[in-house]
Amino acid sequence: MKKLRGIIPPMITPLKGDDELDREGAIRLVEHMLKGGVHALFVLGTTGEAQSLSYGVRYEFVELVLKQVAGRVPVLVGVSDTSLKESVKLAEHAKQHGAEGVVATPPYYFGSSQQELIEYYTALADALPLPLYLYNMPSHVKVFIEAKTAVALADHPNIVGLKDSSANMNYFETLIHLLGDREDFSLYVGPEELTGECVLMGADGGVNGGANMFPELYVEMFEAADKCDIKRVRELQHRIMQISTSIYTVGKYGSSYLKGVKCALSLLGICDDYLSYPYRKFREEERAKIAEALKALGAI
Amino acid sequence: MKKLRGIIPPMITPLKGDDELDREGAIRLVEHMLKGGVHALFVLGTTGEAQSLSYGVRYEFVELVLKQVAGRVPVLVGVSDTSLKESVKLAEHAKQHGAEGVVATPPYYFGSSQQELIEYYTALADALPLPLYLYNMPSHVKVFIEAKTAVALADHPNIVGLKDSSANMNYFETLIHLLGDREDFSLYVGPEELTGECVLMGADGGVNGGANMFPELYVEMFEAADKCDIKRVRELQHRIMQISTSIYTVGKYGSSYLKGVKCALSLLGICDDYLSYPYRKFREEERAKIAEALKALGAI
Amino acid sequence: MKKLRGIIPPMITPLKGDDELDREGAIRLVEHMLKGGVHALFVLGTTGEAQSLSYGVRYEFVELVLKQVAGRVPVLVGVSDTSLKESVKLAEHAKQHGAEGVVATPPYYFGSSQQELIEYYTALADALPLPLYLYNMPSHVKVFIEAKTAVALADHPNIVGLKDSSANMNYFETLIHLLGDREDFSLYVGPEELTGECVLMGADGGVNGGANMFPELYVEMFEAADKCDIKRVRELQHRIMQISTSIYTVGKYGSSYLKGVKCALSLLGICDDYLSYPYRKFREEERAKIAEALKALGAI
Amino acid sequence: MKKLRGIIPPMITPLKGDDELDREGAIRLVEHMLKGGVHALFVLGTTGEAQSLSYGVRYEFVELVLKQVAGRVPVLVGVSDTSLKESVKLAEHAKQHGAEGVVATPPYYFGSSQQELIEYYTALADALPLPLYLYNMPSHVKVFIEAKTAVALADHPNIVGLKDSSANMNYFETLIHLLGDREDFSLYVGPEELTGECVLMGADGGVNGGANMFPELYVEMFEAADKCDIKRVRELQHRIMQISTSIYTVGKYGSSYLKGVKCALSLLGICDDYLSYPYRKFREEERAKIAEALKALGAI
Repeated sequence: MKKLRGIIPPMITPLKGDDELDREGAIRLVEHMLKGGVHALFVLGTTGEAQSLSYGVRYEFVELVLKQVAGRVPVLVGVSDTSLKESVKLAEHAKQHGAEGVVATPPYYFGSSQQELIEYYTALADALPLPLYLYNMPSHVKVFIEAKTAVALADHPNIVGLKDSSANMNYFETLIHLLGDREDFSLYVGPEELTGECVLMGADGGVNGGANMFPELYVEMFEAADKCDIKRVRELQHRIMQISTSIYTVGKYGSSYLKGVKCALSLLGICDDYLSYPYRKFREEERAKIAEALKALGAI
Repeated sequence: MKKLRGIIPPMITPLKGDDELDREGAIRLVEHMLKGGVHALFVLGTTGEAQSLSYGVRYEFVELVLKQVAGRVPVLVGVSDTSLKESVKLAEHAKQHGAEGVVATPPYYFGSSQQELIEYYTALADALPLPLYLYNMPSHVKVFIEAKTAVALADHPNIVGLKDSSANMNYFETLIHLLGDREDFSLYVGPEELTGECVLMGADGGVNGGANMFPELYVEMFEAADKCDIKRVRELQHRIMQISTSIYTVGKYGSSYLKGVKCALSLLGICDDYLSYPYRKFREEERAKIAEALKALGAI
Repeated sequence: MKKLRGIIPPMITPLKGDDELDREGAIRLVEHMLKGGVHALFVLGTTGEAQSLSYGVRYEFVELVLKQVAGRVPVLVGVSDTSLKESVKLAEHAKQHGAEGVVATPPYYFGSSQQELIEYYTALADALPLPLYLYNMPSHVKVFIEAKTAVALADHPNIVGLKDSSANMNYFETLIHLLGDREDFSLYVGPEELTGECVLMGADGGVNGGANMFPELYVEMFEAADKCDIKRVRELQHRIMQISTSIYTVGKYGSSYLKGVKCALSLLGICDDYLSYPYRKFREEERAKIAEALKALGAI
Repeated sequence: MKKLRGIIPPMITPLKGDDELDREGAIRLVEHMLKGGVHALFVLGTTGEAQSLSYGVRYEFVELVLKQVAGRVPVLVGVSDTSLKESVKLAEHAKQHGAEGVVATPPYYFGSSQQELIEYYTALADALPLPLYLYNMPSHVKVFIEAKTAVALADHPNIVGLKDSSANMNYFETLIHLLGDREDFSLYVGPEELTGECVLMGADGGVNGGANMFPELYVEMFEAADKCDIKRVRELQHRIMQISTSIYTVGKYGSSYLKGVKCALSLLGICDDYLSYPYRKFREEERAKIAEALKALGAI
């Protein structure tokens, strides 16, 4: 398998209501991102609200996206679960519809020691029908996949990469140092604010939520950083930070980022902004602030 | 509905292998606890490893236990989930087989503000076919159901109680102060080390894992505390702390408690000690220590 | 040394301005508490804002209180510090003026492992001229003095007790189980909401901030619990919880408790309510709420 | 005042015993770092074990270093304290001996809200005789100086910069975005693993502990990044990560970094490796591993 490099947007899941997909919106969003040049897609991640959806909707969404993409770019499917068996079942569904790989956080109800993480991921990778990317997401999962654990797991033939959403760059630099030269293991950074510098320092790409809205911006950042064009990286970083400090900071919610992205996509005419529990979409006042932010960015 | 008072063991889920119930063990365990005089049963809680089981096994286990209990005591079913829809589906299954109520933690992947908890639990209680007990479990869920939130939710006609596993007695005393006198709302404590004092101070009972092994001990503690027999409470507390400091402290695992209970039940001849991922059962050396502890307790 | 049992109020430090004692207020407060029957005093604890005071003021306050108490009850002095040497120096000053013992949290800037805690406390107890009480205060210190560590340290001839402010009753019940029978080691609980049940279960007393305001209430609670008079314990608990849920919950501050106690003491005419940085005293609006709460309690 | 840019090592405090300076070692270490081209020095930071030292030793060390440096480079002095008054006193001492500025974390015993941080730092900066650098160190202090708070404080005429030791690059990129263009405010990164990318993205320098041992390496990294020489940045990063993953990872201590730096300096013949409580220096076995690591790095 060739290493996947570039921007892999963690796709939001367009919803119309409780546990009901906005199918037309989802199709528009896929086309919007592909037109923007993204290198792959990642569905059912944190940005995709996967855990808040029923399994029925998760399965339906995987099928819908894979059918729409139809092989134009690789699609990764999030199978993070507290039950190993449910992860494997969803991965089988994903494979059947053409996914290229799956992504999984550690189990997020029971905490795990690092030794337990090794045992868990080994058992999972053994059972999965598709290559597995580790997903470090300590703020939601409580557990950190330590660098030594990642190095141990990287030797499993079916574990092919790691996405880090910790924003802890000591950790990510350690991963780059220990694993960055391997041809069979990829390193992606979650927070889009860090894609520029991470790729400059040797990462393989970014799983950046902002690419739902502005796919071409993050693609250009990846390319500038990949060519070590620092001047361009700094210019693009300025715009990325404008998005980050306006669209993602409305209200005092832990979920301001998610609400902001969905609200912006709705204002851009791409899809509905319904959010599943425990979250609710922005009200009018907050929506007006997102509209203002989009105007300031020249996006509407 | 009459208030449920007493010992409600959070039943472990006897397993034979990955995602495979030990059905005979489960039946023996139900009978063992009923014989010990427990006032109700709680299945699919944290002690039941609910999140680690596939939905198939969860549904099967609910049916098995309800059939075996056959109305002799009330049965509560854990429906904690990250997806509201899945919680409701499981509750419908539980109702169909005769459960008396359901129990739910906050969603445990995405964090919630207290306002979001109120919205979430209101929507959940509205949709559930059975009365709901709130389940405060901050160490696994990351979110704390604050006292003010519990008070607000206690007014919902379908929310009938709260089980607290935080071990934070300032919090629990505040709940007793604010909600303890209500006839339509029950307060249970999770950690068995606290059942004596909590009942003395006004709680309705304990959801105590040790009652899988020694149901009569915790039942007696409840009764002694309910009668304000301090002398007996202190004697029973001594034995409860012996269990707690021997059976639950083998190895340096976050899951020593769970491994200890399952291992002890296996040594007592009641059921298998298989654990689902991310945990593994005790090895021989650790099992020997549990055997020793049981001997010291006079249990084998 | 005879074991100290009963209510040991953690005395607030009356201030008139930045780093300036309200000496008259301090004298009134000492007399107020002694009149209320408290069994000892504890100065320079968390409630005393010790860490926020200059060393000059800390030394002055120790001298002032010891002179005023003049041996009527034992006085304990907080010597918690990040520098072992500074702890010892303050303890020498305390001894010179007649203190009976000292109290120390773990160092609170650098984190410590449990092994490092044992080494630190051993070195400290070796160097101290007075008996040492351990002070478990994880919310401020980040480090938890685990039960095993406390048991190991209890064998040091100069370590004579532990005050627990964690509010974690599993922990405290474990301490009672492992150390409660020792004649040379005392166990005190910090949160006043727990004094009743802790003494019922075997603790030696409470280090309760509310006793600055209402010393006789907590003294009566200690005595009722010590005699196992549950009926009276529950009545007193009701009043203690009224205080806790009114005086300590004004505003959305982490320091609402401290601001509330000082404001109430000012309204009761005992001392000034100045607070040292990083905290500021209540403004008029909040002060009015404390006045209301005191009226509801019949205290003014 | 001209903006300070470059490498500002957080100097370790050479000790011979409990609260006893290794004065000769300190002089050698100053000369070693100045010879390596560092742009300034920072004494009494976290790496300097400031909080573990008595005030007597803190004052003595400030005087010693300032006398030895004798104006060759600017010297910043850490005045982090839980007592505002003690911070100001130490700053006066530092000014008297020629320091250029002071550095302070938030108070680290009592937690502060962001509003309280603004009040605290404003009062501190008003009272200080030297310019103040904010010091974000959440792992030790528990409190995070949020970006909005830093922006508000940057307008104070006596607050001139911020050092971030959080390793959270989302935060640091936000600071660069909001404050990076100001001529009167500097941004430094603590973790040396991040100096390259931070300077590439617009930071003013690094406060890097490794510069105690290898000052010229971090100076070269600063210069390469400042010139946007990515190729050289990556080469130097490789060496920096070799140090980080060998010298700082011996043993399972929270303080492995500090023990490693002091042990290496001892092996390099620069100064004693005594550590103040709660830490102890490496034993022979661990010391041998540091010696090996230094050999692998070609340093001995």
